[in-house]
Amino acid sequence: MQHSDTLALSLELLKQPSVTPVDHHCQTIIADRLTQIGFEIEPMRFEDVDNLWARKGTTSPLFCFAGHTDVVPTGKLEAWDSAPFEPEIRDQKLYGRGSADMKTALAAMVVATERFVAKYPDHQGSIAYLITSDEEGPSINGTVKVVETLEARQEKITWCLVGEPSSTNELGDIIKNGRRGSLNGVLTVQGKQGHVAYPHLARNPIHLATSALDTLCKEVWDNGNEYFPATSFQISNIQAGTGATNVIPDTLTVTFNFRYSTEVTSDVLQQRVYAILDQYQLDYHIDWTLSGLPFLTPVGELVNAAKQAIETITGRQTTLSTSGGTSDGRFIAPTGAQVIELGVLNATIHQINEHVNVNDLEPLAEIYEQILINLLT
Amino acid sequence: MQHSDTLALSLELLKQPSVTPVDHHCQTIIADRLTQIGFEIEPMRFEDVDNLWARKGTTSPLFCFAGHTDVVPTGKLEAWDSAPFEPEIRDQKLYGRGSADMKTALAAMVVATERFVAKYPDHQGSIAYLITSDEEGPSINGTVKVVETLEARQEKITWCLVGEPSSTNELGDIIKNGRRGSLNGVLTVQGKQGHVAYPHLARNPIHLATSALDTLCKEVWDNGNEYFPATSFQISNIQAGTGATNVIPDTLTVTFNFRYSTEVTSDVLQQRVYAILDQYQLDYHIDWTLSGLPFLTPVGELVNAAKQAIETITGRQTTLSTSGGTSDGRFIAPTGAQVIELGVLNATIHQINEHVNVNDLEPLAEIYEQILINLLT
Repeated sequence: MQHSDTLALSLELLKQPSVTPVDHHCQTIIADRLTQIGFEIEPMRFEDVDNLWARKGTTSPLFCFAGHTDVVPTGKLEAWDSAPFEPEIRDQKLYGRGSADMKTALAAMVVATERFVAKYPDHQGSIAYLITSDEEGPSINGTVKVVETLEARQEKITWCLVGEPSSTNELGDIIKNGRRGSLNGVLTVQGKQGHVAYPHLARNPIHLATSALDTLCKEVWDNGNEYFPATSFQISNIQAGTGATNVIPDTLTVTFNFRYSTEVTSDVLQQRVYAILDQYQLDYHIDWTLSGLPFLTPVGELVNAAKQAIETITGRQTTLSTSGGTSDGRFIAPTGAQVIELGVLNATIHQINEHVNVNDLEPLAEIYEQILINLLT
Repeated sequence: MQHSDTLALSLELLKQPSVTPVDHHCQTIIADRLTQIGFEIEPMRFEDVDNLWARKGTTSPLFCFAGHTDVVPTGKLEAWDSAPFEPEIRDQKLYGRGSADMKTALAAMVVATERFVAKYPDHQGSIAYLITSDEEGPSINGTVKVVETLEARQEKITWCLVGEPSSTNELGDIIKNGRRGSLNGVLTVQGKQGHVAYPHLARNPIHLATSALDTLCKEVWDNGNEYFPATSFQISNIQAGTGATNVIPDTLTVTFNFRYSTEVTSDVLQQRVYAILDQYQLDYHIDWTLSGLPFLTPVGELVNAAKQAIETITGRQTTLSTSGGTSDGRFIAPTGAQVIELGVLNATIHQINEHVNVNDLEPLAEIYEQILINLLT
């Protein structure tokens, strides 16, 4: 069987066991292809993380493909029907860790760029690649550091397409044009340990906190807006107790997360949480971690170029969405770039037997190529 | 220094490292002394637990001293100022594991009985000892099994004095004439796991349960009565979460305990908990463990004999109480026996450097002897 260009490069990348933060030659494979079509390659290693910045052209506007070569761990190997780093096609589906998230998109980007450059050697502006091997890990030495480097030398991205698997039911049905902010809090409520037979000598932090937690769970934080669903509050972990059934614990620990819209800010959310807890006169402390500011790319050149490309190649009308988890787009958007995420179906990401439809790979490369045509010719 | 009779026997018992369920010769030491004054000795070993039933006399009424030879573990040895099984007197205090809970009371019982039998060889009724080495452990093969054996042969205890350390500030200031019931529940609330970014696809069991838990914490279960404080509900442990901050957990587990008065029953409490949880339409399950029925010995022959003895020996007015943790009295009371607990100060039980006042030992033996005089002559 003759493999398409995109499938062939996908297979090559999927054979690399690049579990985060290990790149395992993926960026070299990509860089070698880009070098052949005139890109200048600039590896940017920070600590244990390989990053790749590659650029063809020096003028504006700058279109950038962004993505990551690292993948999440495989989970139990014996649970896979085929080895996660020995990609296999069964029933028109390509199985392997990273097949959906997001090595096939990387392959489609390279193939699209090669074809575009061959057809339009004198295209306008520039094309770049911003690839990291730290998207699935702590995200400290990856995209954020590359962006800092670019900002320091005033190298500005105009349009950025992140190849995250945005599609839900059919290729191209969803473009992510923003993401909610993500704010984590660890609440510690202080009580006083004691014996359950003598509750008057203790202060049970669980009993003290239930009303406050109930209020937090019921609070309407906002109603969202045109682009964002309503801000959500979720408690992910709660823990108190020594394990003994007759001991009142001295502390309660509650971990919670906000996914928030542009209708609020992390400061506003923090103040509102404090206000609620203070109503209940708790002895408490909260450690906050802001893991992502919300960002939004309103309808404009990039969104329109992508929507039109999807319709041209697949005949589909696409939907804009800001739902779901965070992505490296959160680090690029603050520079002023227009940022969207567009890639294959996300149904099996991070799962055992992760896979994509083989028949989506060439159309994805064609969509990417059409976006380049729409913006740079 | 000449040791008193009670101190001498206490030292002998305290040298035995009888960490529950090990008796380590304690019952033999006691049985040897009782044999010499005419007791018939009946060891009752069940599984890994030594128990002693000893009786002098065949007629009614039957007065029974009850107690345990086992002690709780020492905790960190280096935290003790003297070795826990090498009893030591410092500053008129006797230090050692079990000194308060409850080997000195066992010594006082034996000495009191010896003196009483010497003075009143023709006393009324009978005297018995019900001693276990399983009070601090699971309490499965100890007093409860001995009581079952006695019940099977219709051997009835009229009055039972458990030598648990009931005193709070001064010897004899408190008699326990009952104990609250103790009912444990483990509540599991079922939800559906998911990603915090997609809460609509999950069901967060923490969010589902907070209102119900708040209602349980605020419920007034009863107002107690003349002998019992109000029934209390305490959550001792609560746990949900995978540890990850972005995962909605699938289950919430809550461990709670009721200490309950005779104004309710365990059945009533269970039904009321179900009724509250059902209001919130939770998908839940509760595993119940009834760890002790409430019992009460109203003012009567035994209580009056003890109060009068305390006043005679110490000049103190005693107070009746049903507070605090469970004791083996809960197994004896259901046979119809009058049961009280009376012993040394409980301030240091189960702690590092457990100790008693040396000067309380002889008075305790005298109180016990006076009770025998009050009831059996």
